[in-house]
Order: sequence, then C-alpha cells, then structure tokens
Amino acid sequence: MPQKMAIRNEAIKRLRGVFEKYGFEELQTPSLEYREALLGKYGEEAEKLMYLFKDPGGRDVGLKYDLTVPLARVAASYPDLPKPFKRYQIQPVWRAEKPQKGRYREIYQCDIDTIGSSSPLSDAEIIAVINDSLEALGFTNYKIRINSRSVLFSTMEKSGILEKMWLSAIQSIDKLDKKNQEEIEKELANKGLETEQIRDIFDFLKKATPDEFLSKVIDLAKDLGVKENLVFDPILSRGLDYYTGPIFESVVGEPKIGSVTGGGRYDKLLKTLGGPDLPATGTTVGLDRVCDVIEELNLWPDINPTPTKVLVTVFSPELLVQSIEVAKTIRDGGINTETYPDENTKLDKQLKYADKKGIPFVVIIGPEEARKNIVVLKNLGTKKQISVNINQLVSQISNY
Amino acid sequence: MPQKMAIRNEAIKRLRGVFEKYGFEELQTPSLEYREALLGKYGEEAEKLMYLFKDPGGRDVGLKYDLTVPLARVAASYPDLPKPFKRYQIQPVWRAEKPQKGRYREIYQCDIDTIGSSSPLSDAEIIAVINDSLEALGFTNYKIRINSRSVLFSTMEKSGILEKMWLSAIQSIDKLDKKNQEEIEKELANKGLETEQIRDIFDFLKKATPDEFLSKVIDLAKDLGVKENLVFDPILSRGLDYYTGPIFESVVGEPKIGSVTGGGRYDKLLKTLGGPDLPATGTTVGLDRVCDVIEELNLWPDINPTPTKVLVTVFSPELLVQSIEVAKTIRDGGINTETYPDENTKLDKQLKYADKKGIPFVVIIGPEEARKNIVVLKNLGTKKQISVNINQLVSQISNY
Repeated sequence: MPQKMAIRNEAIKRLRGVFEKYGFEELQTPSLEYREALLGKYGEEAEKLMYLFKDPGGRDVGLKYDLTVPLARVAASYPDLPKPFKRYQIQPVWRAEKPQKGRYREIYQCDIDTIGSSSPLSDAEIIAVINDSLEALGFTNYKIRINSRSVLFSTMEKSGILEKMWLSAIQSIDKLDKKNQEEIEKELANKGLETEQIRDIFDFLKKATPDEFLSKVIDLAKDLGVKENLVFDPILSRGLDYYTGPIFESVVGEPKIGSVTGGGRYDKLLKTLGGPDLPATGTTVGLDRVCDVIEELNLWPDINPTPTKVLVTVFSPELLVQSIEVAKTIRDGGINTETYPDENTKLDKQLKYADKKGIPFVVIIGPEEARKNIVVLKNLGTKKQISVNINQLVSQISNY
Repeated sequence: MPQKMAIRNEAIKRLRGVFEKYGFEELQTPSLEYREALLGKYGEEAEKLMYLFKDPGGRDVGLKYDLTVPLARVAASYPDLPKPFKRYQIQPVWRAEKPQKGRYREIYQCDIDTIGSSSPLSDAEIIAVINDSLEALGFTNYKIRINSRSVLFSTMEKSGILEKMWLSAIQSIDKLDKKNQEEIEKELANKGLETEQIRDIFDFLKKATPDEFLSKVIDLAKDLGVKENLVFDPILSRGLDYYTGPIFESVVGEPKIGSVTGGGRYDKLLKTLGGPDLPATGTTVGLDRVCDVIEELNLWPDINPTPTKVLVTVFSPELLVQSIEVAKTIRDGGINTETYPDENTKLDKQLKYADKKGIPFVVIIGPEEARKNIVVLKNLGTKKQISVNINQLVSQISNY
C-alpha cells in the first residue's frame, strides 16, 4: 500500500473516532443521483463539472457532486428520522476538472452535519468536533476562525450599502487572505461602492464584536474544551451564499494551503435542495488537504504502509509447519502476521520482502530454534535480533 | 442509521480485522475504469449490465463491474509491488440489473487475493481467512467446501469426455445444489454425453480424492486452525471458466441462501485482463448475503444502530453548562456521548429521542444533582436508574 493510502486510511479512522465520540452516525449514500437533484444546488453553471449520463434504464443520472444533495434527499425520504439528525459521511464525489489520462477527479469528501437543531450548542459541537479532529490528527499549529453572517450584514447596513450588494461585497472581502486590502478596495469600488462606504466597511469590521448567537456559540465551544485555537475573525466571510448564521473555517500555520475545514449554519439550504424545511449546521473536512499537511509536516513518521507487524520466514520445506504454527500463535495474540508463502525461497529474499513492505519484525526458525522451541526475533528498524521462547513471543513483540 | 447499515458497517469492521491479521492490505481504486478494461474480462455479453458513458473529456469510461479488473490494472501499473501482493478491497461495483425507481444496483463487493504466489500455503491462507471471517461474524453452522479443477478434469478424462466438453459438463454439475442428479444427467445427455459417460462421471466423482496440490492445501489449512468446517467435495465445480486449481466456497446451514463466499486459484486470469503474468488465488465474500444471514439468524441482537452510548439530557437553560461538562467528562473517558442540543425541550421528549435512536444510557442532571455533584444514570433497556458520583460515571457506564 502506498504511504499516501496508509495516511488517508489512518486519518479516516481517527476522524471517525472523533465524530462518533460526539454521537454523529455514519451515512453512506449511492454514488448515482438523478440529474435534476444534482443540478438543484449549483445550477447549469456546474453542469460541465458533473459526470452526467443515462443509465441503462434510460434515466438521466450522474455521479454525485457533493454530500449535501444526498443528505437533503435522505432527510426528505425519511421524515421519521429522530431529530436532531447528526450524520457524518466520508465518500467520493466526482468533479470533471481538467481531465488527464488515468485521472477521473474522484475526490473523497468528509462532511459532518447536524440537521433539525437551531441551538447554538449544535454549532459549538461542530467546532469542538473540528478541534478534536485536528488534535486527533496530531495538528498543533492551527486556528479555528469564526464569524457570523449577521456581523457581516450589519457591517454592510451600517456602511450604507444597498442590500442587493451585500453578498457581492462579502464575496470580495472573502478574498482578503489571498489579496491585500488595497486590491479588495479597488474591487469594491469597481462594484460601485463609494470610497467612504468602503472605508466604513473596513472600520466597522475592525471594531466588530460577535452578535448574541455567536457569543453563545463561542462560550459553549469553550465549555466543550476549545480554547485558544478559536478566534473571532470579523473578516471571515466564506463566499458561498447559503450560510445564514455562524461560519467557521480552520487554517494551519504550515504549510500554506488555505483552509483545512470550512462550514457554518445553513438554515434554508435543505429546503432549496428539495429536502425538509429544517435548520442545519455543519462542516466539511478537506481530507486531501489534511493528508497533505500530515505528509508535508511528517506528522506520522512511523506510519506503516502495511498492516503486517511480523513476517514469519520459512527456513526450509521441513520447517514450514513450524513457521505456520508460530505465525498462528502470534496472530492469535492479536498481532497482524504474515508467513512467507514459499518454503524454497532464500532467507535473504524473504528479509528483503519484509524490508520493502515496511514490516517491522521478522521471525526466523531454523532447525536449532525448532529443537529448542525458540525463535529468532529480528527488529528490521534497529537490526537487533534476540532469541525468544515461543510462549514469550507475543508479549515480547507487543512490548518492543 | 438503519439497522441494516449498522450491521454492514460492523461486518466490514470485523472482516477488515481478520484480513489484516493475515497481512492483507487494503486497496481502493477509483470507481471509473476505461471501457475496454471493463469489457476485457466479460466481453460484450455483460455490456448491457454495465454503466458505460463518455466522461466530460470524451473518453469512453464506465463504473466498475467487479474488483478483479482494477486489481489487474493496479498490478500492471505498479510492477514493483513486492510479491506476493496480498490485498483486500471492499468497494462498490455497479450492475444495471432490472433498474427500478431510485435503485441503481450499487453493490458492495469484498475481495481478498494473493497474487504472485504459486504456493499451496497461499490457498490455505485464503481458506483460513474465510474460516476466521465467518467465525468473527458469529457464524457457527457453516462448511467450507473445497475441490480442485484437476479433480474434475481428471474425472472427465477418465470418463472419456472430449476435452472441449469438459467446461460445459462441469457447468452442469455445478448446478447440483439447485437441481437433483436426474435433472443434471438429463442436461448432460442433452449436451451430447453418452449414458455410460454420465454414469462414469458420477461414479468417479464419488470415489475422487484430492490431488497432491489440494492435499497440501487441506493439510496447511488444518495447520492454520481450520478443522471440521473444511470439507473436500468432489462435486463442487463453480461455473466460472478461469479457475486453474483449488476452488472453494462456503455455505451456511441456515438460512438457505447459497454460498456466502466463493473463490479459487486463477493463475492465468490476470494476464488475460491486461495484468502481469502472475499466479493468483483469492475469494469473494458475499457481503450482502453475509449481512442477510446475520439479520435472519439475529446473530447480533444488541447491535446499536447509533454509535452513541449515552445521551446527556439538559434539564433547564441554567443547567446547560453542567450537562455539557458532564458530557465532556464521559467523552474524555472514551465513551461516545451526545448532549441534547436544546435547553428548552421537555425531559420526556429528550428521553423519547434517546429511545427512538437506540441510545442505551441517559444521564439526567437536575438542580439537586448539580448541587451534590452527582447525576442520575438511567439504563433505557432495563429502565433502572441509579445516582452516580460524577467521577464514578465513566467506570459505572463502562462496567454496566
């Protein structure tokens, strides 16, 4: 297994653990959705990024493009689901961006959402899940930025911006992490805002404080153990138009790769997608980016690309059964163990196999060991080897 | 989460554990494959069962139809993979059978294969994996039937059947678990076999014994701990034409649903699929059937459709923070815990939520409990409730 896949599998395992610790349950939905459901949220604009086709029954279908459309469909199909419904979903979605040979842009997405709750506790829990997730992955240098759409909207109002321009102005401000303030000011001016209005926007944003709901979210998140990593940031705007309350994203100090999670409250969206009229809040975890960070910072230097902990070598055809029995003993002790499946292969080649696969331990049973009921246990990392009694072997490997 | 999904997730978890215990590593491949790769194994015959279409780049692609084609492709793409390469793969495949509204025939398949080894130990390990898997799932009443293509072929030869008829005759015999012998005899006669030949086939099959390779496989499987569940069955033929050595399948006594696993050695197939010229052996685990058995026999009566073990209720807005802190304490103790996210909901409704979701424990913190630093812990199964000191709570729940 390539290192990359080992990291992703381990990351998913740790994330699952955190999500379930907070009572989020796993949802899996089929890869195919009806065309009209897929286009509902994004419109014709996104159509060229979708894999749309006719199924063998002649229906217009496509590969799913995100995990929110299926969530809305499931919520509509099962109106009896106990609310709040807290689900996580880790599944591929498909984006037909710049197709290259052999690459189909199949991306794993990871969404965590609570639907059917207007309580600030639900938003705070999402933030706690983000915090615990990043901690569980071994991240130390990160911030969770939080803001509210209402902070941005009231800034616009106080700055005298026409309501129809609010979202557009917010989308410009959203680029502040990529462009400098001067460029954004120019962009806002090009959108027709007056110099004074633009100055006011930035002045008000500097002085902004959390609204009542957001204050509650922040307090509750602190009760849930999210401390200095949580930062109120009135500049944070997240471009998408469907957020209705708190918005949050997390960023790592290194490497410079943008946000690793992003989300917020979206109380109107599910209905727009043909789902029930229920409030909702949630976040996406950018699994690919998260894995890039782990790789880049070498956070998991000891991750094993293979699940195998021990290779039991086979000394000779006569000693095959001994090797099999020793392997069984180790396996029964709960340790993942392979036996080299060829009794005529030189020991040297068997050791190379273990080395190439990244198997940390090798067991060797020669004729003398077999007579004495012992084995040679070799640590391929340290190159040290010791003789071990067979009934000590499991504890010896476990405690290495 | 519906019960069905809970069972499937738990089954996958247990199977993964067994596969990795034997050193099989997980492989995941994209959903889309090129059209010609998909058609390679099955030919135009299966074309109408495939989801084939053009991707946005204009290439002919389709959703994968099995997990062997991607295995062959991966083995061809990464010639440096250490051999033997032992992989398992649990992913959806698509079959466009009898399309119905809302159903797309997306099926999870689960394959375990060793490629690059001709050793009987590799076949024996697959059998041990099957045995341990069925045990891990809680199956008790099952048999692993084993035979070899060479047993069948030598029977054909001794019965004087023309070689070009062997596979066809074997495919008839394969139906012996669905039809009686008389019907099969009629079918063989219709295929042009003489009465004497047909009688010979059945006589020879009754007296058949394992060939040398198969005997080794059986002995090694026994060394690996597979005992009375392993049965040599010279009648077993498995219809597919690509098996070259041992074949094996497992069947449960109850319910009557056919085989739950099926596989064998296929030393020529990978090359046919455009992969490397490597020997291989492996099995499919019929995940849907396995889950049907678990449900039908009610093997896992206590399986929890939700990951949540404890719901901490919220008595009143004033006591919300206490509830959050208690929930955090339980969570930090490694127990999946939800807090009801609305401080204005009647306790009764909160308990109903827990009940409906199948959450086994509920914690209640009223004003008096808060003063005394205790909580009420209620077991929703037994309806019993006790008062517990907060610092005893985790061990109390763990030991329940």
